[in-house]
Amino acid sequence: MIILGIDTSLRCTGYGVVEQKARTPLALRFGVIKTPAAKPHSECLRRLYDGISIILAENHPDVCSIEGIFFCKNVRTAVTLGQARGAVIAACAMAGVPVYEYSPRRVKQSVVGFGGAHKSQVAALVGRILNLPSLPTEDETDALALALCHLHAAGPGSVGTELKPL
Amino acid sequence: MIILGIDTSLRCTGYGVVEQKARTPLALRFGVIKTPAAKPHSECLRRLYDGISIILAENHPDVCSIEGIFFCKNVRTAVTLGQARGAVIAACAMAGVPVYEYSPRRVKQSVVGFGGAHKSQVAALVGRILNLPSLPTEDETDALALALCHLHAAGPGSVGTELKPL
Repeated sequence: MIILGIDTSLRCTGYGVVEQKARTPLALRFGVIKTPAAKPHSECLRRLYDGISIILAENHPDVCSIEGIFFCKNVRTAVTLGQARGAVIAACAMAGVPVYEYSPRRVKQSVVGFGGAHKSQVAALVGRILNLPSLPTEDETDALALALCHLHAAGPGSVGTELKPL
Repeated sequence: MIILGIDTSLRCTGYGVVEQKARTPLALRFGVIKTPAAKPHSECLRRLYDGISIILAENHPDVCSIEGIFFCKNVRTAVTLGQARGAVIAACAMAGVPVYEYSPRRVKQSVVGFGGAHKSQVAALVGRILNLPSLPTEDETDALALALCHLHAAGPGSVGTELKPL
């Protein structure tokens, strides 16, 4: 099973592709899709849609795992983040890849075993689980952790877990 | 100049394509993109992206005009509407069509001459301006009014109006 984890934002979106082979998860690729702050929103969304479409075409993930939104400062932030999610979800849906969402707490619980874990703990664990030569950046960590979270949720240890695509 | 007006929502998005020839605006096509309530969000966004892409490919609009979001009940509604906008804007941006946004008040002001106009007044005026055989539905009206609003804003009568793509 190949999973694409995406930590969505307008200016800097992290992505991580993880493959589960036998019992060992392997990071096939990870990185960020960035857009300069000076560019209009539409250009950000174009780069996001295009960037995710390229990863989908090159790595053929079976599913995509994104962060659920449960808190936003205000309506304007929520609309902006929603727009970035819309571009990402549309890219996945156009490629026929189902999208699952997980709360940040569930992701931490899944990777570190503790929902209130610090970001540095998550980065260290993600690096160790995937045997990475160096620590991933914060956005990459979140994306890889989302992929690992879906792997755990979909794994044999969680029979009965309800998985519902967006 | 050909303008695609879009009244974005997750379940029922209105669209209207208006062409300005000489001094007469002409409705080339209008309708709605619907998704049944039972379908997941990702399927709605796929239909939205796909539907808008088809209109862009068939009618070759120069610009797209959408409604600006200035009020939302709560964060969840804002995220959902943001996602629908994200799919629409990504489709336009991938086709190289710039997107402009206008407040509902400005759209009414532009079409009826009064920012607080009732929906039925807008529908009647849109029908008269475009010489439609019957009144468009509410979503179609809003989309056609958005297209007409951009036509007015971009027209010779509004030199100095600042138009900034999203």
